[in-house]
Amino acid sequence: MDRLDRITFTSDFGLAWGYVAVCEGLMRRLNSRVQIFHLGHEVPAGDVSAGALILERAAPAFPPAVHLAVVDPGVGTARRALVLASQRGDFLVGPDNGLLIPAARALGGIAAAWSLDVTAVRTKASLPLDQVSVTFHARDLFAPAAALLSAGVDPGQFGPPTELGTLVSLPPPMVVASRESFVAEVIEIDRFGNIGLALRFADLSPKQGLYRVEVVEETLPEWTARVVHTFSELGSGELGVYCDSWGQVGLALRSASAAQMLSIDRGMKIRLTAVPS
Amino acid sequence: MDRLDRITFTSDFGLAWGYVAVCEGLMRRLNSRVQIFHLGHEVPAGDVSAGALILERAAPAFPPAVHLAVVDPGVGTARRALVLASQRGDFLVGPDNGLLIPAARALGGIAAAWSLDVTAVRTKASLPLDQVSVTFHARDLFAPAAALLSAGVDPGQFGPPTELGTLVSLPPPMVVASRESFVAEVIEIDRFGNIGLALRFADLSPKQGLYRVEVVEETLPEWTARVVHTFSELGSGELGVYCDSWGQVGLALRSASAAQMLSIDRGMKIRLTAVPS
Amino acid sequence: MDRLDRITFTSDFGLAWGYVAVCEGLMRRLNSRVQIFHLGHEVPAGDVSAGALILERAAPAFPPAVHLAVVDPGVGTARRALVLASQRGDFLVGPDNGLLIPAARALGGIAAAWSLDVTAVRTKASLPLDQVSVTFHARDLFAPAAALLSAGVDPGQFGPPTELGTLVSLPPPMVVASRESFVAEVIEIDRFGNIGLALRFADLSPKQGLYRVEVVEETLPEWTARVVHTFSELGSGELGVYCDSWGQVGLALRSASAAQMLSIDRGMKIRLTAVPS
Repeated sequence: MDRLDRITFTSDFGLAWGYVAVCEGLMRRLNSRVQIFHLGHEVPAGDVSAGALILERAAPAFPPAVHLAVVDPGVGTARRALVLASQRGDFLVGPDNGLLIPAARALGGIAAAWSLDVTAVRTKASLPLDQVSVTFHARDLFAPAAALLSAGVDPGQFGPPTELGTLVSLPPPMVVASRESFVAEVIEIDRFGNIGLALRFADLSPKQGLYRVEVVEETLPEWTARVVHTFSELGSGELGVYCDSWGQVGLALRSASAAQMLSIDRGMKIRLTAVPS
Repeated sequence: MDRLDRITFTSDFGLAWGYVAVCEGLMRRLNSRVQIFHLGHEVPAGDVSAGALILERAAPAFPPAVHLAVVDPGVGTARRALVLASQRGDFLVGPDNGLLIPAARALGGIAAAWSLDVTAVRTKASLPLDQVSVTFHARDLFAPAAALLSAGVDPGQFGPPTELGTLVSLPPPMVVASRESFVAEVIEIDRFGNIGLALRFADLSPKQGLYRVEVVEETLPEWTARVVHTFSELGSGELGVYCDSWGQVGLALRSASAAQMLSIDRGMKIRLTAVPS
Repeated sequence: MDRLDRITFTSDFGLAWGYVAVCEGLMRRLNSRVQIFHLGHEVPAGDVSAGALILERAAPAFPPAVHLAVVDPGVGTARRALVLASQRGDFLVGPDNGLLIPAARALGGIAAAWSLDVTAVRTKASLPLDQVSVTFHARDLFAPAAALLSAGVDPGQFGPPTELGTLVSLPPPMVVASRESFVAEVIEIDRFGNIGLALRFADLSPKQGLYRVEVVEETLPEWTARVVHTFSELGSGELGVYCDSWGQVGLALRSASAAQMLSIDRGMKIRLTAVPS
């Protein structure tokens, strides 16, 4: 295996208490040439699909790398630990809970998978076998494996190959399209309060005019939104439907938070219905 | 052009959803030798003057670099995209909304300016011309330009030279000084709740004794503050006027948040009036 | 002295206003080969013992390095500025307020200590002697010293050796153990709302069964918690006592915030009393 010497790191640990730093230090100790890129450590706590979304977006922007991702509400249970090889030449390291799959697909698909055996990984890393916690596998298993992979160790040394059909997948975000009406899950509220939906803009029809906006199963007010190309077409307080930078349907206000105005959280479902013109 | 291989990156994107990471990955892909330094991605959303302040402070501390800065409420409009060359040998890349100007001045002044043409930049970067969003020019235009500049590409290859007189500038923060009375805009509330004013401490007079502190155009209580050299001179609950670490007038409490006690936000205006001793 | 070319940086500055970036830029300017690792800049403002905890956890994970740490509520007073050498070959740079001591112990103990003289450091760094603030010694003193140390400058050039017995130490977090009852300070609330206590799990006895959980000196409800090995053993809403990833006693809920449910903040004291089975 070639050395990659490049690790991206995604987690829901936050940066306040040293959890990310201790992993970074350990990886730096196991591979002194490694460069570590932090994709984000503010994934909502335990939100696997949010972590998967960030990794899916950011990993393909990097050159081939080892992608370490840990959003792991099942830590300490029998859930497997994985290394996936992408068709593009990346490795993805993390828990077998669906976190890695969308990114692996975005990197060309999964070429192979292995289970991580903690004894094999820690022996190879010269780490003590009796210092494995039940709550912090990022430090005790995943980061050492990522560091060794970045240094060229073959993933076959960490555990047995895994049948691709047995990998855990996340249910895709909910989206239902019918004639001129769409129901889609909110997959993102960004820092500007823009609302990202699990609906490809390419699938929206019509791509102009007005839509009625309702929150499904919540008693919240209805809104009307207009399809626009850019935020600047919007008047003050006017809600816009637009193609966001990932090619998905977004809802936005010009210089204010649409999520706040509509009282929307991630995971809610929104119905868009075209208003006849 | 020499290679700089060094990029600083400032934005209002936050670190939660991968927007910064996707830019970083792309720059790393376009220049495998580049080092990227994050000056801060928590600029208040759309607050161009706050971004300009951070860039102005931090950029001169670095050796000459490419400074990528994106706080861009006008994204998708006709606002221009810029590269500025500083007298010191830096490049600054970002929107033409005033964000880059104070930093360029702090780096010795603007030596030259060019407009960025998206077709020219993306062609040079071997990026597809049909994948340009209207809401994320950091990824689609500015980051590729910054990466190419860091690798030694001449900015003249990205677009036409721009007349310096046509560059958009921000209005300077408000400050009015009269005999022993000063009105100045709050330009910063730091993490300790210290209040930074748009007033050089060198211009404050007298530099001792007491000041009456009023918030202009707000019905908030008045306070009295004492000019001190260090926080440690302050008693518990006593408000101090001091020279902050940027040479500006600050207001602080010893171990508590002055901004919270006085109910102060960025952008408010404060009147300081010397109290006769 | 050998070059270390590696600096870790811990502070309570936050990342919003460029305070960390200006230090990073300066260090990069003073040592162009340095790599800087951010252990965390969200230490609660002025909370020296929280900063000490993070540094103590993360520093040993790294290979020998210069560890710059600044949580410095006494900035501007007569408190000394320090360099400590660890037995392992690290340097620790920061204020003499106890911040560095637990990490130095975790790195094998303190081999030697020096006071930092601002004139000596700035002269060696070719920085102007008249530009020293009273509120930002990270930029004006500590970061330059760290950068020079990373480049191989001998700490003896920065000031006189310091008697180890004169170094300021923090009081250890409170913990009292008696027969089957324990009172311990809350030293951490992590991002998941798990509560970390200043009590080694090895010292807890019995290591099974139920404990009554009370907050000392607060009128808050009592809870019952069960000793578990992993979060997954817990039922919904059931409080668990467990060995956290640092070997300390923790309190947690399965997929919710224990700190929120119990209304617990850092610094509170918790009594655990074994319930006879």
